Amino acid sequence: MDQQKQQADWVLTGVSRLVTLAPGTVAGAEGPLGVVQRGAVAAKDGRIVWVGPEEALDGAVDTSSVAPGARQDAGGRAALPGFVDSHTHFVFAGNRAEEFQLRHAGVSYEEIAARGGGILNTVRATRAALPEELWALARQRLLSFARHGTTTVEGKTGYGLDAVTEARCLEIMNELAAVPGLPAVVPTFLGAHTIPPEYRGTPEGRAAYVDLVCEEMLPAFAGRARFCDVFCERTAFTVEESRRILERARGLGYLLKLHANQLGDTGGARLAAELGAVSADHLDFAGGTDLDLLRAAGVTGTLLPGCSFSLGVPYPSGRRLLERGLRVALATDFNPGTSYTENMQMMVALAVSAMGMTLDEALTAATLGGAHALGIEREVGSLEPGKRCDVIVLRGDDERELAYHFGVNLVALTVARGVVSGT
Amino acid sequence: MDQQKQQADWVLTGVSRLVTLAPGTVAGAEGPLGVVQRGAVAAKDGRIVWVGPEEALDGAVDTSSVAPGARQDAGGRAALPGFVDSHTHFVFAGNRAEEFQLRHAGVSYEEIAARGGGILNTVRATRAALPEELWALARQRLLSFARHGTTTVEGKTGYGLDAVTEARCLEIMNELAAVPGLPAVVPTFLGAHTIPPEYRGTPEGRAAYVDLVCEEMLPAFAGRARFCDVFCERTAFTVEESRRILERARGLGYLLKLHANQLGDTGGARLAAELGAVSADHLDFAGGTDLDLLRAAGVTGTLLPGCSFSLGVPYPSGRRLLERGLRVALATDFNPGTSYTENMQMMVALAVSAMGMTLDEALTAATLGGAHALGIEREVGSLEPGKRCDVIVLRGDDERELAYHFGVNLVALTVARGVVSGT
Repeated sequence: MDQQKQQADWVLTGVSRLVTLAPGTVAGAEGPLGVVQRGAVAAKDGRIVWVGPEEALDGAVDTSSVAPGARQDAGGRAALPGFVDSHTHFVFAGNRAEEFQLRHAGVSYEEIAARGGGILNTVRATRAALPEELWALARQRLLSFARHGTTTVEGKTGYGLDAVTEARCLEIMNELAAVPGLPAVVPTFLGAHTIPPEYRGTPEGRAAYVDLVCEEMLPAFAGRARFCDVFCERTAFTVEESRRILERARGLGYLLKLHANQLGDTGGARLAAELGAVSADHLDFAGGTDLDLLRAAGVTGTLLPGCSFSLGVPYPSGRRLLERGLRVALATDFNPGTSYTENMQMMVALAVSAMGMTLDEALTAATLGGAHALGIEREVGSLEPGKRCDVIVLRGDDERELAYHFGVNLVALTVARGVVSGT
Repeated sequence: MDQQKQQADWVLTGVSRLVTLAPGTVAGAEGPLGVVQRGAVAAKDGRIVWVGPEEALDGAVDTSSVAPGARQDAGGRAALPGFVDSHTHFVFAGNRAEEFQLRHAGVSYEEIAARGGGILNTVRATRAALPEELWALARQRLLSFARHGTTTVEGKTGYGLDAVTEARCLEIMNELAAVPGLPAVVPTFLGAHTIPPEYRGTPEGRAAYVDLVCEEMLPAFAGRARFCDVFCERTAFTVEESRRILERARGLGYLLKLHANQLGDTGGARLAAELGAVSADHLDFAGGTDLDLLRAAGVTGTLLPGCSFSLGVPYPSGRRLLERGLRVALATDFNPGTSYTENMQMMVALAVSAMGMTLDEALTAATLGGAHALGIEREVGSLEPGKRCDVIVLRGDDERELAYHFGVNLVALTVARGVVSGT
C-alpha cells in the first residue's frame, strides 16, 4: 500500500551535498552534520515537508502542484540551513567609521568620547533619524544579512534609550519581520544597553533610568519583544541592576538574554544561569565554574568573534565551552561600534581558524546553536520536516569550502521561509 | 591663453571622495591619501590623462568624444585606485578544503602528508589538469579578484615543478594578461617552490632539481616571467640554493623576489637585500638588522596576513616595518594551502585591526606598496596622469568604511585599464 504522499509547493533538487544538521531524523543523513549526498528538499507554505535523497523524492512527495518558478535546481552545488544570527544590533542610524580609524591609529577611548564618539554617537543619530530613514537602513542591512546566507536575525534596541525611540526601533523590527524576502526578525529589548546621557553623572540619575526601564518601558513593550537583554559589564549595568531588570522582564513574559563577561569577570554569567536565561553572550572572561553553571541551567553560550576581529583582541575559545559541555552559538554581534559585519561565514571562519572549533562544530553553532540561543530550535536551524524552509545554496559543491575559502561570499542563493531572499 | 585641453575617451564623475594616493601631484588632493572632494578622473586609451576636482574637469579636459557608455557616474560614492595584489599563486587545480578542515580538527601535518595532502596534492592535480581546465580556473579566480577591487595580480608558477607544467602555467598567465576585462597579470617563475616528489629523498635528487631550475627552466622562461621567486625556508630551499637560483635568474634578466623568514630566521631577508630583490615577502621572523638591510637596499617588504588568518597564527607587525622605514606592501598570498582568498579588502582590515597599521598606511600598502613590490610604481598604484586607468568605486561614500565594515565586499565597480572588470 502506498503511503500518503506529502503535498509540496516548492522543491530544491540537484544538491551535491545537503547539510541537514538533522542526522538522527533525515533518511540517508551521514556524519555529525547529517549530510545527504544528492539531496532534495520539499516544502509547502514555507515549511519543510520532506528532506532526503533526491532519488526518493518522487516516491514521497507529490510535486505536481509546484509552479515552475518554485522548482529550484542547485545545479550540483551544496546546500545547508540558513544561518541563525542570534545576536545583532541592526537598527541604528549614523556611522562610526572615523572613530574606528582613530581608535586603531592610537587615539584613546577617552579622547574619542570627548570628541563625541562611542555609543552615544549612535544614540544621538538614532534618536534624530526619521522613522522612515531608520526603517530603510534596517531593511538594507537585512538584505545584506540575507545575501550572506542568514535567514533569521535577532535584533536589539538600545540605541534609543528613551521610551519613544526604543518603541520606534521595536516597531521597525516587528514591521520588517512581516516583509517577505527578508530574513525572519526576532526583536529584543535592550533598553539597558548603557545609561543615556541625560541620566549620567549621578547615582540618582542612574537609578532613575533603571526605574524607567523597569516601570515604564518593560511593561509597555511586553509582547512586542521576545527577549529582554541587559549589558552587564563594569562600564554598563551592575549585576544587581541587571537582576532587577531581568526579573521584572521575566515576570512580564519576556525571555532573557545577557551580555556577560565580555570585558571582565563581572558575575554576568552566573546571573544568566541563576535566572534561567536562554543565552549568555560574549563570555570571553567566564571561568570554569561559570560555564558549569550555565550548562547545568541549560543556557546557550553565544560567542561573538567579530568583536575580537574588529577590536584586535584575543578570540574567545569555543573549544573551552564545548569541552565543558555547553551548547554554543556563533553570532556576528553586528553593530556600529565593535563588529560591523553582516557575514556569518566570517564567524564560521574565525571559529575554525582562531577559536579551536571544527567546521562541524562551527556550522552547528551558526545554525542550530543560534536557534537554541533564540529558543526557536523547533522552528529553524536544521533541515527537517516541520521547520521553516530556510535554505542556502553555496557557489561550490562542498560545504567544506566554508572557513577554508575566506573573505568572499560563498552563498549563491538564500531562501527564507520558502522565498528567495536578499535580492 | 587657453592651455591645450586633454583629450579623453572615458570619464568618472560624481565621486564623493576620490582617493588618489598622489597628494603631491594632483590639485586639491589632501592628506596622506591625497583625497579630492567631489573628484573626477579622465582617461584615454586606458591611461589616466587628468585627475582633479570635478568642477575643474570641463576646463581641463575635452570630453566631447567620450561615448555615453564611457561616462561613469559614481553617484556620490567614494573611489580609489584598484588594489595591486603583488603576491598570489592563482594558477592551480584541485582543492584542499578537506585538508584545511582536518588540520584545524587537530590532524598533524605528517598525517596529512601521509594521506597525500599538502603542496604535493596541488602539484599532482595541476600536472594532471588539462590546459583548458587550468586556464578556466585561473580566469574564474581573476574575475573574483576583480570583483573585490583588484586590478593587478601577480601570479606565481610553482605547482608544476616540471618544465612542461611550469611552462603551461606561465603561458596561461601571459594569455590571461591580454584579456580585456580582467586584472593585469604579472607572471613570476617559482620553480623553486618545493622539491618535486620525483627528486625528493636524496641530496643528489635535490641538487639535480636545482640544476634543472637553473640550467633548463630559467633560460627557457626568460622573457616570459617578469620575476623569479624562491621559497627560502627550512622546509624548502636553503639560502645557498636560493642564492644560486636567483643569481642565475638575475643574469638572465629576471627581477627578483624571495619568500623570506616566514617560518623562522632563515637568512632569506638578508639574501634579498644582498641580491637587490624588488621585494622580500612574509618577513614574520625578520629581525631588526634584516629590516635595516632591506631598507638600505630599497627592497619592499610584503606582508601576507591571510596566512596568519588561515593558519590561526600571530600576525606580522606592519608597525615594526614602517617604524624601520621600510616600504610595505600588503598582498593576499592567494593559494590553496595557507591563504585561500581573493579579497584585498580583508588584508586592509587585518592590517588595521591586527597589524598596527592605520587605514592610510594599509591602503597605501595595498595600492602603491603593491606597485613598488612589482616594480611598476610608474604604471599603477595611484590615480595620476600617465598611469593606467585602474579605479574602483565603493558602495559607500567614504573610504574609511574599509577595515571598519569587514567581511563584506564594499566594492561596487572595478575598472581595469579603463574597462569595467570582474563581470
